Amino acid sequence: VNGTVNIAVIGATGYTGQELLKILARHPTATVTAVMTARPNHTPPPPALPVDAPVDPLDLDRLDDVDGVFLCTPHGAAAPLVQAAMQKGIKIVDLSADFRLQDQAAYQQTYGQEHPAPELLAQAVYGLTEHYRAEIRSAQLVANPGCYPTCILLGLKPLLDHNLVAPDATIVADCKSGVSGAGKQPGDRNVYGAVAQNFLAYGVGSHRHGPEIRQQAGTDRIVFVPHLLPMFRGMLATIYVSLAAGSTADDARSCLREVYANADFVRVYDRGQPEVNRVQHTNYADLAVADAGVEGQVVLTAAIDNLGKGAAGQAMQNMNLMLGLDEEAGLS
Amino acid sequence: VNGTVNIAVIGATGYTGQELLKILARHPTATVTAVMTARPNHTPPPPALPVDAPVDPLDLDRLDDVDGVFLCTPHGAAAPLVQAAMQKGIKIVDLSADFRLQDQAAYQQTYGQEHPAPELLAQAVYGLTEHYRAEIRSAQLVANPGCYPTCILLGLKPLLDHNLVAPDATIVADCKSGVSGAGKQPGDRNVYGAVAQNFLAYGVGSHRHGPEIRQQAGTDRIVFVPHLLPMFRGMLATIYVSLAAGSTADDARSCLREVYANADFVRVYDRGQPEVNRVQHTNYADLAVADAGVEGQVVLTAAIDNLGKGAAGQAMQNMNLMLGLDEEAGLS
Amino acid sequence: VNGTVNIAVIGATGYTGQELLKILARHPTATVTAVMTARPNHTPPPPALPVDAPVDPLDLDRLDDVDGVFLCTPHGAAAPLVQAAMQKGIKIVDLSADFRLQDQAAYQQTYGQEHPAPELLAQAVYGLTEHYRAEIRSAQLVANPGCYPTCILLGLKPLLDHNLVAPDATIVADCKSGVSGAGKQPGDRNVYGAVAQNFLAYGVGSHRHGPEIRQQAGTDRIVFVPHLLPMFRGMLATIYVSLAAGSTADDARSCLREVYANADFVRVYDRGQPEVNRVQHTNYADLAVADAGVEGQVVLTAAIDNLGKGAAGQAMQNMNLMLGLDEEAGLS
Amino acid sequence: VNGTVNIAVIGATGYTGQELLKILARHPTATVTAVMTARPNHTPPPPALPVDAPVDPLDLDRLDDVDGVFLCTPHGAAAPLVQAAMQKGIKIVDLSADFRLQDQAAYQQTYGQEHPAPELLAQAVYGLTEHYRAEIRSAQLVANPGCYPTCILLGLKPLLDHNLVAPDATIVADCKSGVSGAGKQPGDRNVYGAVAQNFLAYGVGSHRHGPEIRQQAGTDRIVFVPHLLPMFRGMLATIYVSLAAGSTADDARSCLREVYANADFVRVYDRGQPEVNRVQHTNYADLAVADAGVEGQVVLTAAIDNLGKGAAGQAMQNMNLMLGLDEEAGLS
Repeated sequence: VNGTVNIAVIGATGYTGQELLKILARHPTATVTAVMTARPNHTPPPPALPVDAPVDPLDLDRLDDVDGVFLCTPHGAAAPLVQAAMQKGIKIVDLSADFRLQDQAAYQQTYGQEHPAPELLAQAVYGLTEHYRAEIRSAQLVANPGCYPTCILLGLKPLLDHNLVAPDATIVADCKSGVSGAGKQPGDRNVYGAVAQNFLAYGVGSHRHGPEIRQQAGTDRIVFVPHLLPMFRGMLATIYVSLAAGSTADDARSCLREVYANADFVRVYDRGQPEVNRVQHTNYADLAVADAGVEGQVVLTAAIDNLGKGAAGQAMQNMNLMLGLDEEAGLS
Repeated sequence: VNGTVNIAVIGATGYTGQELLKILARHPTATVTAVMTARPNHTPPPPALPVDAPVDPLDLDRLDDVDGVFLCTPHGAAAPLVQAAMQKGIKIVDLSADFRLQDQAAYQQTYGQEHPAPELLAQAVYGLTEHYRAEIRSAQLVANPGCYPTCILLGLKPLLDHNLVAPDATIVADCKSGVSGAGKQPGDRNVYGAVAQNFLAYGVGSHRHGPEIRQQAGTDRIVFVPHLLPMFRGMLATIYVSLAAGSTADDARSCLREVYANADFVRVYDRGQPEVNRVQHTNYADLAVADAGVEGQVVLTAAIDNLGKGAAGQAMQNMNLMLGLDEEAGLS
Repeated sequence: VNGTVNIAVIGATGYTGQELLKILARHPTATVTAVMTARPNHTPPPPALPVDAPVDPLDLDRLDDVDGVFLCTPHGAAAPLVQAAMQKGIKIVDLSADFRLQDQAAYQQTYGQEHPAPELLAQAVYGLTEHYRAEIRSAQLVANPGCYPTCILLGLKPLLDHNLVAPDATIVADCKSGVSGAGKQPGDRNVYGAVAQNFLAYGVGSHRHGPEIRQQAGTDRIVFVPHLLPMFRGMLATIYVSLAAGSTADDARSCLREVYANADFVRVYDRGQPEVNRVQHTNYADLAVADAGVEGQVVLTAAIDNLGKGAAGQAMQNMNLMLGLDEEAGLS
Repeated sequence: VNGTVNIAVIGATGYTGQELLKILARHPTATVTAVMTARPNHTPPPPALPVDAPVDPLDLDRLDDVDGVFLCTPHGAAAPLVQAAMQKGIKIVDLSADFRLQDQAAYQQTYGQEHPAPELLAQAVYGLTEHYRAEIRSAQLVANPGCYPTCILLGLKPLLDHNLVAPDATIVADCKSGVSGAGKQPGDRNVYGAVAQNFLAYGVGSHRHGPEIRQQAGTDRIVFVPHLLPMFRGMLATIYVSLAAGSTADDARSCLREVYANADFVRVYDRGQPEVNRVQHTNYADLAVADAGVEGQVVLTAAIDNLGKGAAGQAMQNMNLMLGLDEEAGLS
């Protein structure tokens, strides 16, 4: 790609869409030519959007001159937009859940509806950037991972891939997220009085990111419990792993260091613990491995910004790769 | 005990001491006759303490006419006060860590100093009220449990006692606490900018409550990781348990219901999840068991107020029992 | 009244109604015999209400055996309930705005609708307890003041009544409230992401409490601006007063001390400033007067809990007086 | 200046210094060649500073090759550094209070010590960028304004300069700041338990920014009261102004629009109110004028980020002007 690229954003009124617009406003070579929403009257636009483009009603013709489109729509709503964009030959990063599960039946079971475009599933590349960089570069459609799967898999996948985890052992992923993950629409769950000075687990045993995590990890023995933190953005996963015989916490740490040696957005700690406020408003993922104090057990912690690396940041990384741009453009 | 009882509080300037004074102010038959601190100039007293008694420098003679004394002093400092009070025949609830570990060597290893009064260890009763009620009633010295051990053990101990947990399986206790657990003394860890909109694990594999939890649970295979919540008070433990063969989540829930059938301060949920804001400013412990979505695994959640049931509330419960009063006095 | 009194609460699902139930649960001589809501399906009841009475649909027959009823309904909805209760001869504390403004036209202008029961306006006593104690004792209908008027008037009214304020000078009342004042219904204004780490003025020049404040203060020259604090409960008013010629900050402070000498719930500071966390979960109002650093100007600060002294607490105080009970019952 | 400029930062461990390093890391033509602190062991450096330069102990020789230096030191400590830098001919932005007051006696009275370098006072330009742009461009030493003065003066100064304020009327500036304004050093005032869910006025009639505000406004009749918000960063000033006879809120708004027509960082609202979360992490100042609901009175509101436009952002603006760079470099 020579010079600048033209970018459209669909679904710009939510937290993720707005975060993406902020990133695009700092991007050196991307021009936002269309910002559209399928719910134009949903929320009055804030007085000063980070980019100058107005938020318009959805108009697929406006995709004709764009190089890439981000879809920040709810699950189920992305598929027809993907189909339209595929036909126009545009690069697509879909931030919804529609193309994350490769299996049609799993989608139906998890999201309670038939998959709206099963014929496209095979073409979708799972956008966990650091692990599928080559596939993403040549993809036309990237399914941007969920925030929880991103956080867990960045830490866990290298250990699984390198056989550092005891086979058949149960893995526990105890995750805590800021409330922005629940979206902008006011409700009983994100009203201030229900969030501030409160904490709870939710979706125990049934959260929709569970199947996505297990699919990507390649094992069904992952217990995943999300919790709601009394804060706005950022996420921490505490992952409890039984090591394979003969492996140590140092081995696990070394593995992460090697896997991410060239990954600018993943920082592996030598000592100390990740803190959410070190990754907020960034695209970083911070990882640490510590001895659990119990024979053969390690504690793997991972912190990301759920709106950054967990959504808009990773989406930008993926689009950069798909368009042949510098992977870090707009993100550092 | 006929009529009212006289109570002394030593170490009244911290969060726990102040919470205790609030409880005592509502107590129908307890009179606070002495509020003392070993650090009288440490913090200027707030303009309106919940009880009228002034905060005085430490004076052991003032224990002569009291029936019970609460020690809210730092670990290591409680032992000489306990010795003095024992000699006076006073009932003692020690909220410090000095008498929680029954083993002298474990104390030294955990707290980095020789135990200051090993000869008293055998007399100390562990004050997990609902589980040691009879022993507490006849004790002169009760070691009030740590907040994390209270939260974890109330949920876990019944399942262990009734053989519902798979033998030799690792148990994970992922705990999250409000920052009041770190005390009132300002430092890098509890300054507002380090807590608000932040979240992190700490003391991974090395927290001092680990040995206490394992001693009381009777197993070394408990991984315990505490985290710091961006809120003031309250705590949630998410406990991951492999069930014994043939046992189910329903069995675990029924077990808790039976064990706590007559425990007014423990509420076992049929459905839904405990939330910290339902137990704040109370002496309640809320428990739930849910299927983990992975064969043979359950998720046990427990919420308490770390300053309430996790400290001052349980201390009051214990003192009530020791003095022959209504267990709930001052607490409901 | 001999023995216990029977109390009904209508509109029990909001923050104010729940606070009132907590107070009533601690009340030594009040029995809650009916908890009703006109919106029974509005919000699922929390798992553990502070009192045992179920929340039932509205049924006016259940008022037959009660001595007093609290109305926690929205403005406009209280009037028919007041009419029904008046006919039954029951004591009524109306926490809505329906009877706060004595003037029918002012009501219509402020609330955008005709007054639903103008014939009752003359019987309503304004429930600023410390200032209208005698009238409240003999009233059948008390209009419980708004939270902002309570906070401002407790500080300002004594200075106006004792001619310590410069005639014709503009008085500024800059007020800041926790978000619970906006109610429990989720919306764009009280969703967590709009409140936490944010602050703003609202209703500048147009807030509905403005006419109520000016009516009670007896002057039109009060500029009142409310702000939304990133916290749940509690309120502070900073009131800027030009003193009458010859008067000093000490005079103003002495005036407050004398006026509130026998008022157990009003604390006048000698030095230092009120803090909202000293009045949260209480019925206290904390007041201070400080020199403004500009000739003839003083700064009067007042802190209350908007759900306590600003709503449910003062309502309880008023009901206690109306029923001949101890004014402090349930509140200390 | 051709190509890049070399920049030093002294006092890099506090919130302001770190904010400045973040801004400099995004600056297109500035290179940070020295990051020094006079308290090298004060706080352990965070694991990932926003710029790569290490934090070194103070060494004045390292100023030899820099074009500009930022001083983020406490008041009293800046003067000797200013003297050294002046002799080296370096451009200096001093973020401390040492050169904000033009009058030596006022400094002594306000800061309780003799001015450390009175001979330099005449050379210091007050860095309220939008109002002293020409002077700043040619200055060698800029005294960066305090956060409260910046917030208040951006709104108030145009109205005073254009005679829209009633002569001799008292002006009230009620200000609310996030706790980061109190600095990073832990203490009783910024510990989490004292800030969260709390609110209070402080420094009533005596805050050190009062003389600075009055000096710049050219009137002694400004009552200034700061308050501490339960949040980290950002600030709102609510300013109560009696208009000059014949003037209206519209006149005041038009005046602000004209004065700031070419000021990219000042946004004047047509309607609605500034919110702190729209200016956090930016260099914007948002202003609004509203009718107060009382004859002749308007309410002027101003929001800034106390660490941005109120400190590091404005400092960068000033340095850009002093070095002949684009005023917005690093800030948009």
